[in-house]
Amino acid sequence: MPRYALKVEYDGAPFAGWQRQADQPSVQGAIESALAKLEPGPHTIAAAGRTDAGVHATGQVAHCDLQKDWDAFRLSEALNYHLKPAPVSILVAARVDEEFHARFSAYERQYLFRLISRRAPVTHERGKVWQVQHPLALEPMQEAANHLLGRHDFTTFRASICQAASPVKSLDELRIEAFDIPHGQEFRFHVRARSFLHNQVRSFVGTLERVGAGSWAPGDVRTALEACDRAACGPVSPPQGLYLSKVGYPDDPFAG
Amino acid sequence: MPRYALKVEYDGAPFAGWQRQADQPSVQGAIESALAKLEPGPHTIAAAGRTDAGVHATGQVAHCDLQKDWDAFRLSEALNYHLKPAPVSILVAARVDEEFHARFSAYERQYLFRLISRRAPVTHERGKVWQVQHPLALEPMQEAANHLLGRHDFTTFRASICQAASPVKSLDELRIEAFDIPHGQEFRFHVRARSFLHNQVRSFVGTLERVGAGSWAPGDVRTALEACDRAACGPVSPPQGLYLSKVGYPDDPFAG
Repeated sequence: MPRYALKVEYDGAPFAGWQRQADQPSVQGAIESALAKLEPGPHTIAAAGRTDAGVHATGQVAHCDLQKDWDAFRLSEALNYHLKPAPVSILVAARVDEEFHARFSAYERQYLFRLISRRAPVTHERGKVWQVQHPLALEPMQEAANHLLGRHDFTTFRASICQAASPVKSLDELRIEAFDIPHGQEFRFHVRARSFLHNQVRSFVGTLERVGAGSWAPGDVRTALEACDRAACGPVSPPQGLYLSKVGYPDDPFAG
Repeated sequence: MPRYALKVEYDGAPFAGWQRQADQPSVQGAIESALAKLEPGPHTIAAAGRTDAGVHATGQVAHCDLQKDWDAFRLSEALNYHLKPAPVSILVAARVDEEFHARFSAYERQYLFRLISRRAPVTHERGKVWQVQHPLALEPMQEAANHLLGRHDFTTFRASICQAASPVKSLDELRIEAFDIPHGQEFRFHVRARSFLHNQVRSFVGTLERVGAGSWAPGDVRTALEACDRAACGPVSPPQGLYLSKVGYPDDPFAG
């Protein structure tokens, strides 16, 4: 059966998350239903990152196996046709080897988190960012973030329901970019690692926000990390600022 | 009665437009209802631009008269509290002289129009941009736009229901900015004039899109302008890409 990789963009708001569930809408379920319009199912697709309810993607990658030898462009067009009106979009499809696996072939994931500090409620970006109404200081947040870089036991920043075999992960990038927006500031957290624990990025951002607000000192984040204790974590940020933005593969399936 | 200027941001999607209507939600109605929670009404507010259904604002300006001498910051906070959950936000409020009039004191309006050219349907920006699925060429669009600059009879680009006394207006800016987005391009139209005819910006953009797509030559826009005939206009763009972004006053009420 020919295998196809799909680069997927979605608005996570109406979904209970990526993963198919019996009685709630999911991104996986939406794509599998669209596939079933092309070839009789059931279809089971695998994704690089199983995003939680409300989390978005601009560069999720999934793969599927089909009977027919589809032209990749026609496949993406047909899926987008059947996905309507769900806010899920196949940005590009590509034929891949049967060895390709969206999850297991990936060597890194990149996430973007958008945090807006503004007094007046956001309107256009509602559901697309996490908004706080107090000012935030970039430098202490970045200083705190630097303590998290590298290989650590991230038990502190791991949801209790996390199923990963080990809490030890290597964090390759946690860079915070700040820019002025009218009447406020936006902070973009760029986070990159081979893989992540459940809620790791949201635990980072929620904790770093406390540093930006002045409640925590940057060194408190190092202390929390070293505690290897979930109770030492700051608040977990809400999901709506989080985007799975890129998945890295040794051979980029979409490069062709 | 003390007068206050309000800078207003809103998502136009759920509204039948700015203007209050008997049985449909409007931005004006939402703000007037919030004012009535602060002081018994009825309240009637005036705005710089009466945006159509589905049109957004990032910098609409309105004014209201109140009995009480409100601290401007507390007024914006109280209005935002009562506006929830409508996607309308008071960015800033300011006490102004009784001579100030949001509509008649304004010397210019600026609009932004966001047009995305991308094959895959947009998800995060749905309802926030006009999407076309074919490529567009910037240079011919800008060349055509330049024909529209200056003082002209804009009958061609005026809705038949327009109530302006004269179709003669001066267009001060129509600048198109293009940049790459993943798997597509975004075009931002920056449009500035003292005042506009009804549907003028959307008539411009819909016509210029035809130029970008190659259906019209840039000179055809000049011919259409000179025809002074509504029938010579290209298609009118949909509303959801349009934002009232700034209103200019001789004395900026929000400068303080």
